Amino acid sequence: MEPSPVVVLVRPQLAENIGAVARAMGNGGLFHLRLVAPRDGWPQPRAWITGSGAHRILDAAQVFDSVGDAVADLHRVFATCPRPRHIIKPVLTARGGAAEVVAIGQRGLRCGVLFGPERTGLDNEDIACADSLIRYDLNPDFMSLNLAQAVMVFGYEWWLARAPEQPARELQVNETMPATKGELDNFMTHLIAACDERGFLRNEQKRPGMVRNLRHFFQRGEVTRQELNTLHGVVTELGRGRK
Amino acid sequence: MEPSPVVVLVRPQLAENIGAVARAMGNGGLFHLRLVAPRDGWPQPRAWITGSGAHRILDAAQVFDSVGDAVADLHRVFATCPRPRHIIKPVLTARGGAAEVVAIGQRGLRCGVLFGPERTGLDNEDIACADSLIRYDLNPDFMSLNLAQAVMVFGYEWWLARAPEQPARELQVNETMPATKGELDNFMTHLIAACDERGFLRNEQKRPGMVRNLRHFFQRGEVTRQELNTLHGVVTELGRGRK
Repeated sequence: MEPSPVVVLVRPQLAENIGAVARAMGNGGLFHLRLVAPRDGWPQPRAWITGSGAHRILDAAQVFDSVGDAVADLHRVFATCPRPRHIIKPVLTARGGAAEVVAIGQRGLRCGVLFGPERTGLDNEDIACADSLIRYDLNPDFMSLNLAQAVMVFGYEWWLARAPEQPARELQVNETMPATKGELDNFMTHLIAACDERGFLRNEQKRPGMVRNLRHFFQRGEVTRQELNTLHGVVTELGRGRK
Repeated sequence: MEPSPVVVLVRPQLAENIGAVARAMGNGGLFHLRLVAPRDGWPQPRAWITGSGAHRILDAAQVFDSVGDAVADLHRVFATCPRPRHIIKPVLTARGGAAEVVAIGQRGLRCGVLFGPERTGLDNEDIACADSLIRYDLNPDFMSLNLAQAVMVFGYEWWLARAPEQPARELQVNETMPATKGELDNFMTHLIAACDERGFLRNEQKRPGMVRNLRHFFQRGEVTRQELNTLHGVVTELGRGRK
């Protein structure tokens, strides 16, 4: 068994949604799907259509009669998107919940995450089978969250919690490299010479400020060698003037 | 105009997906929807069905012939989930992109986020209209991401980037309060007295360890006053023995 948590759909109504859940699970790297009393029985061919390639997850889905049976072999159970009034339980964000699931998995223990029926969500009996609640931080004025979207948000956070952190911003340079300051300086020399040749920088008073502005512009974002080569070509060609 | 970024669906194919996108936008607090050349024309009643209450967003959706027209009044444009080979551009994570969108909005500037057609994604011409790319960190072995799921992940991150940070874990206590150590101690005294009365802790050698174990257990998670009251009742009742 892979160390990914079990997604438990409690009394899901629409087979299309079960398929969409499987697809979202694939996106997030979650592979273990359990269904508690699916309304229309199981299997339902429509799920494989909306599953859009997540066949492996749907083929391996297990069906149970009750939440208790579905979580009997698990060590820790989380209930998502709860709307309970009078329950005393730890409440986690999606991010916090995903981090706990990862940490528990690293101890070799098995987790499950409960998702309720489309219309009503989990009831109080379902939630009594869980150790903690996971409550998403989303627009409180529009809480109608599609079942597959609920699984997507958890799967996304679960993937992020395990993945090595990506830089929030980086320059994709492909087959080229960012230019060095010296390479940029070569280009500036070329550009300024071409401007001088055409008389564009002839106002001696304004000249230093204009040159500085050009330097600032070309250093606003990282520039790559390939881009500098193209810019050299543009300056050379424009410098020749009209034929 | 609210300071939320514009969601631009480029050549969307299925009206059901446009509706599901609007629903996901509502969840994430995004309200401005633009459609570039929707395949089946616009409006399409099926979108209002899958929109599941996001009527306001769909009613206000604007249609454009080209990506250039759709972004003409925006200051910064992001392209999501790109699959380009030879493009030199900044690449952001969903989280990093959401943070930039928020920061740009705080300067009073307008942002747009491009989402491509279901089957093919954005093409190179579309991407040339964007300043930066947003690439989601998800399972690379299953990249088939539903259009509404793509919008959901961005909307979720956008909401989080603006919302005051939630504690990753907290105890939901409702109408009660976590117990103080003194209240817990009262209960432990009650419990141990009841155990002593029944002779449960009679082994003097094991007694200190057993009492310590009980203390540890009742401090494993936060206990509330209401729970302690119930536990006092249980101990009193069990201590009376069978009738």
